[in-house]
Amino acid sequence: MRTELHADLLELGRLLVSMAEAVRTAMRNATEALLSADLAAAERVVLRDAEVDSLYRQVEERVQQVLARQQPVAGDLRLVVTALHIAADLERMGDLADHVARTARRRHPGQAVPGELVPVVCAMADIAERMAGKIAWVLNAPDATRAGELERDDDAMDALHRQLFSILLGPEWSHGVEAAVDAALLGRYYERYADHAVNAGKHVVFLVTGESAGSGSDGVPAP
Amino acid sequence: MRTELHADLLELGRLLVSMAEAVRTAMRNATEALLSADLAAAERVVLRDAEVDSLYRQVEERVQQVLARQQPVAGDLRLVVTALHIAADLERMGDLADHVARTARRRHPGQAVPGELVPVVCAMADIAERMAGKIAWVLNAPDATRAGELERDDDAMDALHRQLFSILLGPEWSHGVEAAVDAALLGRYYERYADHAVNAGKHVVFLVTGESAGSGSDGVPAP
Repeated sequence: MRTELHADLLELGRLLVSMAEAVRTAMRNATEALLSADLAAAERVVLRDAEVDSLYRQVEERVQQVLARQQPVAGDLRLVVTALHIAADLERMGDLADHVARTARRRHPGQAVPGELVPVVCAMADIAERMAGKIAWVLNAPDATRAGELERDDDAMDALHRQLFSILLGPEWSHGVEAAVDAALLGRYYERYADHAVNAGKHVVFLVTGESAGSGSDGVPAP
Repeated sequence: MRTELHADLLELGRLLVSMAEAVRTAMRNATEALLSADLAAAERVVLRDAEVDSLYRQVEERVQQVLARQQPVAGDLRLVVTALHIAADLERMGDLADHVARTARRRHPGQAVPGELVPVVCAMADIAERMAGKIAWVLNAPDATRAGELERDDDAMDALHRQLFSILLGPEWSHGVEAAVDAALLGRYYERYADHAVNAGKHVVFLVTGESAGSGSDGVPAP
């Protein structure tokens, strides 16, 4: 690979790592704001989503520059376009963390998540954070094993999503319609975050190994 | 613009029109399946989502070919990359129609949408269908006025989304938690469909006029 192109791909990789770390932090902070009904923390997550959007635009601009200046072909070209796909998934993961924070803000000073759902939401947030961390990790150091784990993480997320629905649609539910609707939408935000992480991870595997890892997840909602 | 590149852009435009028409039909059929609890119609929508996914892959492959063979620069390059963005939004609109159909399938033989929500859901579906139709229209014939209408359509969709929530969270709601959760998620599918339509429309304006129409919608959920 040409040296200049190699340098550009490294820079794209650095931007993508920054995005992955930002959306990981965003989801962790959004969940903390949600579970502690912390308005200021929720506001910070919403404000900081602009940083993720800015990183996304930087990736787009850098990709346009690389395509125009270097005119990469074949495999190199696919690598550059792949960076765009990863950035789009990470940007969307940032939006979903923002949605979690907005739910916390909307219900403040109330708690959006009733006590019996806290363990499930915590577990979903842990998986979400771990998945974003793995994307950053694999961008830094090609690691097909770790990338492959994202599929299993997503299966665990889907199981938690079903568990969440079984609680809020179950006979014991005593928190009414509004709390159930909040919880259903929150569940969808975490589940979609994981879907985008799986998609991003597949593209990352291609970016760092040059080998495709199959098609993306279609994000079918839980029953 | 070079003749060969022009021909490629025309072919990309044709693929995008096919996608826009497919996701328009998908959302109309999914809504009909939903409101009439028609299992066979819902199954057809789910099956046909593969056609949208296939068109999306054709756009991706064609873009890669154009970049590799023609090595477009500057404005031409941005046009080609823009086609990718439009295809990604349209593909996601197809997924959201698929989610509506799956909701119909999950509740069959029951009705997923209680009577008092039918007018709102019908209105949301009408706007969704109109928006997809405008994308196809503007791809066929540059029309900044029609493209600009997409923002207003999206405002109308957001108002309906709020109306839907005010009904399902209101004191008159008598259909319990499950129907409310279904309705909240359905509302989100239509609202996200409109967000993607706005994004796609902005990119289409750029594709057909070469002029940018601002940044995308971030899909913030209704209160």
